[in-house]
Amino acid sequence: MSEIRQQALACRDAAQFVAALGSETKRALLRDMAVALEAQCDAVLAANARDMQQAAAKGVQGAMLDRLRLDEVRVSGIANALREVAGLPDPVGVVTRRETRPNGLSVERVRIPLGVIAMIYEARPNVTADAAALCLMAGNGVILRGGSEAIHSNMAIAAALKSALEVHGVPAAALTLVEDLRRETMVELLQLSDIVDLAIPRGGEGLIRFVAEHARVPVIKHYKGVCHLYVDRAADPALALNLLIDGKTSRPGVCNALETLLVHRDITDAFLPQAAQALRERGVELRGDERSRALVPDMHAATDDDYAAEFLDLILAVRVVDDLDEAIAHIRRYGSDHTEVIATADEAAAQRFVQAIRSAVVMVNASSRFSDGGELGLGAEIGISTTRLHAYGPMGAEALTVERFVVRGEGQVRHPQNPR
Amino acid sequence: MSEIRQQALACRDAAQFVAALGSETKRALLRDMAVALEAQCDAVLAANARDMQQAAAKGVQGAMLDRLRLDEVRVSGIANALREVAGLPDPVGVVTRRETRPNGLSVERVRIPLGVIAMIYEARPNVTADAAALCLMAGNGVILRGGSEAIHSNMAIAAALKSALEVHGVPAAALTLVEDLRRETMVELLQLSDIVDLAIPRGGEGLIRFVAEHARVPVIKHYKGVCHLYVDRAADPALALNLLIDGKTSRPGVCNALETLLVHRDITDAFLPQAAQALRERGVELRGDERSRALVPDMHAATDDDYAAEFLDLILAVRVVDDLDEAIAHIRRYGSDHTEVIATADEAAAQRFVQAIRSAVVMVNASSRFSDGGELGLGAEIGISTTRLHAYGPMGAEALTVERFVVRGEGQVRHPQNPR
Repeated sequence: MSEIRQQALACRDAAQFVAALGSETKRALLRDMAVALEAQCDAVLAANARDMQQAAAKGVQGAMLDRLRLDEVRVSGIANALREVAGLPDPVGVVTRRETRPNGLSVERVRIPLGVIAMIYEARPNVTADAAALCLMAGNGVILRGGSEAIHSNMAIAAALKSALEVHGVPAAALTLVEDLRRETMVELLQLSDIVDLAIPRGGEGLIRFVAEHARVPVIKHYKGVCHLYVDRAADPALALNLLIDGKTSRPGVCNALETLLVHRDITDAFLPQAAQALRERGVELRGDERSRALVPDMHAATDDDYAAEFLDLILAVRVVDDLDEAIAHIRRYGSDHTEVIATADEAAAQRFVQAIRSAVVMVNASSRFSDGGELGLGAEIGISTTRLHAYGPMGAEALTVERFVVRGEGQVRHPQNPR
Repeated sequence: MSEIRQQALACRDAAQFVAALGSETKRALLRDMAVALEAQCDAVLAANARDMQQAAAKGVQGAMLDRLRLDEVRVSGIANALREVAGLPDPVGVVTRRETRPNGLSVERVRIPLGVIAMIYEARPNVTADAAALCLMAGNGVILRGGSEAIHSNMAIAAALKSALEVHGVPAAALTLVEDLRRETMVELLQLSDIVDLAIPRGGEGLIRFVAEHARVPVIKHYKGVCHLYVDRAADPALALNLLIDGKTSRPGVCNALETLLVHRDITDAFLPQAAQALRERGVELRGDERSRALVPDMHAATDDDYAAEFLDLILAVRVVDDLDEAIAHIRRYGSDHTEVIATADEAAAQRFVQAIRSAVVMVNASSRFSDGGELGLGAEIGISTTRLHAYGPMGAEALTVERFVVRGEGQVRHPQNPR
């Protein structure tokens, strides 16, 4: 048996143990993990320094290098994130529905953990702790497969977290960090369909496509966030401008940033020139269709690729549409099912937009940047799903459980027999 | 572009139309489908006669041939099943949660259809109508890929159903029956991950493994139902015997029938000889471990394979266990995550069993035969999932939808800007 299969089987056994833990035990465990992480901060920073050196030697720089970097403040941020998860409601054991059938059977739907969750991720070492905390809080075992750039940091963080598991008598395999980072080992992990209940990839589109392509286990993922703001004819221009600036410029490198602006032709004159000016002042490059460029002459011409792009940068695609239907058709064609926004004071238009758009999150008069587990009330987020199955949109602890049936009777049978 | 891809794309377009239908329109549609099916009964029976002839010529007989057979009573049964689905609650648009965030954002979770569902099934022609009805009621498009034995029956049924779609102005592609039954076409369908949102295979384990092996779209399935009855030391022997007889003999060929009996050693003397006698009278063959055979000498010796088997026949595996823990360990080792039953008057033992068993349905003092969408209050059933994701256990119309986020604000942004 391969090592990864052995590790996964051990994680599955440990997951049964975690599934039986009470809420207060899990909370205490997560809080002790936070304490252990802070206590082992020096070891974590030393390991991180090794990763940083190797990355720098490979020529990694800028934002990529910054994502990898840890310092005391960031480690304490990771520890506090663990404490936040410890304060979340426990989804396990929650009875979501209860019914008594005509034959007297009591039928309950009760949340149970999924089992074993494989997290596949790239450079950020904080995912090691964040994902472990959410998976354990939801009663699961977790197999963490991070990127090679962060391997020493991840190992040091995992070691700290595991020391808390030991104190609570939880089998160490409940939190399994894969240290064999060969691609074929990851593929084998993704094909353990008799052991792994769910894989969640987080990172660049290349990694996510690789996971989706090779997995035999269920995968929940999003490839990218091509988020749209549609400024309806009945929009308040000032309100729409606020949504636009927040959506595009407050953090352009994240998946809930805006990528495309659609403007109803009737409001173009009143909105687009000012919006272009405000964006230009904030360093945003605009790429528009002919009608937008007629009003904003210094705008670049948009290509079809621009409308499908997740720029992750200060670039915005722009298009003037004839009506709500054209906006909807555009989003259906180019969207990524992530998050779409309508700015309008017309309740009927808002309703039509919400109904016609199938994206995971649809917003009326609110910034796309709220499309986030914390902002939407989930407390913490293990990922965002654009897979229209199980979970759709930001995923919190509850998305790491499933409802099953618990039935209680007094001896009911389906086909009563005559006594013999 | 291949024909199957074209068909799937057309189904996706049609699905957007179906998603927007109101509940009453969908109900009227399903009722008109029932009327159309009854009106076209002669055509359906003629088509079925052709299937029956071909099957008989291939040597199909017995239960297999009976599953394929239609007559007026069965067609009217299929029509009535459509009417039943028309009477179910509509899951689409249901607001499952509603919250106002501290910043005033209103966050709702609202059910929307999954999109396009591919049903892959074998001989029973009624699945054509049942699956179409549930998928449409939940606002989805459906692609039906039935078995070659039933192709003429399926085509005739689909034609009747489509005539009702036409009356209601619903694009015919919302209900797409695949007539090209080559395996490579099915594989292509199962790999259309940009179009098909879910595949549900129903049939023998071979078909289901083929689908799971080749799919690139999400699959919800169960391979088999190895259902256990554990008779606890605190069980009422008469109650336990009723559950055993109902579970094993009322319909042995279905997935929620019992396959294995586990008996606590303390109740063996009081329970096992009588149970063996009652089962023997009903033609059930017993295969047991040494301790069972010591009490019931004419029992065959059970092999490891017997404990893992879904007999679908009047055969029962039997084992005496030392305690509840041994019963749980047995089920974890040999179970299929489908349905398990405990017979006990000891509430603590029941609780421990429910907590430790991870199966989709767990029953206390009730027959395994209730593990069925209709019996558990779902109204109708599109399948049973032992995939611990999205849906676990019997799946009704609601399992063909997913919750998404609808957010309403008054212009809230995440990072307010200073005015310029």
